[in-house]
Amino acid sequence: MASHIVGVIGGGQLARMMIPPAIELGVDIRVLEEAEGMSADIAASGVGDYRDLDTVLAFAETVDVITFDHEHVPQGILRELVSRGIPVHPGPDALLYAQDKLQMRAKLSELGLPVPDWAAVESADELGAFLADHGGRAVVKTARGGYDGKGVRVVSDASGADDWFLALAEDGRGGALLVEELVPFRRELAQLVARRPSGEMAVWPVVETVQRDGVCAEVLAPAPGAAGRVAEAAADIARHVAAGLGVTGVLAVELFETTDGRVLINELAMRPHNSGHWSIEGAVTSQFEQHLRAVLDLPLGSTEPRADWSVMVNILGGPSEGSLQDRYPAALAAHPEAKFHGYGKEPRPGRKVGHVTVVGGEDLEDVVYRARAAAAFFEG
Amino acid sequence: MASHIVGVIGGGQLARMMIPPAIELGVDIRVLEEAEGMSADIAASGVGDYRDLDTVLAFAETVDVITFDHEHVPQGILRELVSRGIPVHPGPDALLYAQDKLQMRAKLSELGLPVPDWAAVESADELGAFLADHGGRAVVKTARGGYDGKGVRVVSDASGADDWFLALAEDGRGGALLVEELVPFRRELAQLVARRPSGEMAVWPVVETVQRDGVCAEVLAPAPGAAGRVAEAAADIARHVAAGLGVTGVLAVELFETTDGRVLINELAMRPHNSGHWSIEGAVTSQFEQHLRAVLDLPLGSTEPRADWSVMVNILGGPSEGSLQDRYPAALAAHPEAKFHGYGKEPRPGRKVGHVTVVGGEDLEDVVYRARAAAAFFEG
Repeated sequence: MASHIVGVIGGGQLARMMIPPAIELGVDIRVLEEAEGMSADIAASGVGDYRDLDTVLAFAETVDVITFDHEHVPQGILRELVSRGIPVHPGPDALLYAQDKLQMRAKLSELGLPVPDWAAVESADELGAFLADHGGRAVVKTARGGYDGKGVRVVSDASGADDWFLALAEDGRGGALLVEELVPFRRELAQLVARRPSGEMAVWPVVETVQRDGVCAEVLAPAPGAAGRVAEAAADIARHVAAGLGVTGVLAVELFETTDGRVLINELAMRPHNSGHWSIEGAVTSQFEQHLRAVLDLPLGSTEPRADWSVMVNILGGPSEGSLQDRYPAALAAHPEAKFHGYGKEPRPGRKVGHVTVVGGEDLEDVVYRARAAAAFFEG
Repeated sequence: MASHIVGVIGGGQLARMMIPPAIELGVDIRVLEEAEGMSADIAASGVGDYRDLDTVLAFAETVDVITFDHEHVPQGILRELVSRGIPVHPGPDALLYAQDKLQMRAKLSELGLPVPDWAAVESADELGAFLADHGGRAVVKTARGGYDGKGVRVVSDASGADDWFLALAEDGRGGALLVEELVPFRRELAQLVARRPSGEMAVWPVVETVQRDGVCAEVLAPAPGAAGRVAEAAADIARHVAAGLGVTGVLAVELFETTDGRVLINELAMRPHNSGHWSIEGAVTSQFEQHLRAVLDLPLGSTEPRADWSVMVNILGGPSEGSLQDRYPAALAAHPEAKFHGYGKEPRPGRKVGHVTVVGGEDLEDVVYRARAAAAFFEG
């Protein structure tokens, strides 16, 4: 293969978790981290601002393909890389839809994919009209910059997003907010798919995600009781999104399973995703290995689960004193079956600092119990 | 835990394979490599000669515990580290037996462990006497410096080791060669065990190793048909060796299963070992993660296999032209179920440059076939 040094922009835990499969496959990996000592520091070959063209170009010259820890690299820089012949996966045309939720909703609607009712609203009056049509409550999202519950708000009043409208006006760029119907959902699902530049795709089993305060807390893989119609619908949607938006690498499609049995697209992430961490131990090919294969345009690996159930529980915040490692003697002794992951980040309330995965047999309740119990050692 | 930066002396593939589980566990790892660009280069914080005291001491000052890619660090340096209060695992008292096969044989005999008939011989006459007592053929080994079939020779004549006796005499140190009976064996087995400084031990299932030209070619895990008596004997032996020699970290015990059903100790390796590479995907806790846990005196993880069978096939030599990666498009497409490992080493005849593992279900023949077929893509 022509390309074999993978360059990752961004030094967070997603970049970090790409490093083990790169080492195992024998693929060179380099990271442009935002600051020294970040999660992916061990593979960092540069430190700098991903919004600075010269910084990114200097890094890109040392690698064969560019991919990402996050979706925030500005379009201008992405397009400059492409114009210089540097492979960028996912590319700017795809990343646009991860960077702008209004563009994403418009594109998904155009593709005929199932999304909640939505509108672009530019004023309190327009928001009020949408609320009136949707039972008086709705979700408002900033088109750009939101993640993990940030930039998302439930409103029941036309003035509920006035501060965001004001900020958009002051920003001078103008623009609209995204408003969506409050979907009555049974639960949230996530469907991961990997897609190569040559078009090959592979999906993992759809998973159930459990959110707390807008942040992913737990993932059950596969989603209990989702075999058959729901699983097929989720996989079809993810494949259509990946192909329709031209995504290369791993794409995560966050979904609602509605109370009336439909599957609707909530959010997209064009990178490995928290909902796929279970695959490190739980699938033959993890999302991180698959992402490397995809961005190198190598054949994709099997996404078969290794066992009946995998349950991943995030370590959010971490110990109130000391480090994750201080809790290892007790946690590892109690749970020899659990896989512990630390991201090399300082504990801080709400921060994702690690996760625990348990892969197990027939009894889901038992696997859930053990994963939660193992993760609980890192709280408080 | 007090210790949390692991320092590995030696930059080969065993050090390389410790890096992924260190990243996953959130344990810092640093490597002292012999030269720039070695297999474990991504974690290298120093380059230098492990036989140079100042080099090793400077490296040791930057880490909390010292462990190894190989067993060749001189005793004087090991003991200097210990005298300065630096944790060294395995320690010099244990490593002595991995460094000197005569000391090893003597100690194992003293512990009452099952070994082939052996003797220390200092001359052709003594060798001749041993041959006369053992059917006219025997294995002669240099006490120090042998591995992968080097320093091992089958002789059927008293003069068959004259060059080695001469070399020992010229070396000025004098000393003896080890001579052993030629054990009539059905097959070779390997038993891995991990032991913490606090004494906790964990064994993986005994495996069958297939050697070609004195080099490990394939590993079948667990060893077919070895459940019950043979497996228990192998595990008991490994635990006795680890405890009796005071080994910390992973210990590999290479065994003969004799034609008359006994299990005899062939060789020891006090580090992760080629016979345990299957455990990366095939066991809940790999030998590399377990080694890190053990040297940090953390509780050991489960050694349960993840499936009925795991088969590992070494990539020996690698492609005659180009790199391992050049073969990835074809190999990965044909074997989405296989796990491919590249060590970042230039292909060279006979060199271990990577391996392939297939983890699978009930049909061992099928798993063996697929692992061999996947590895064959890297030959010729």
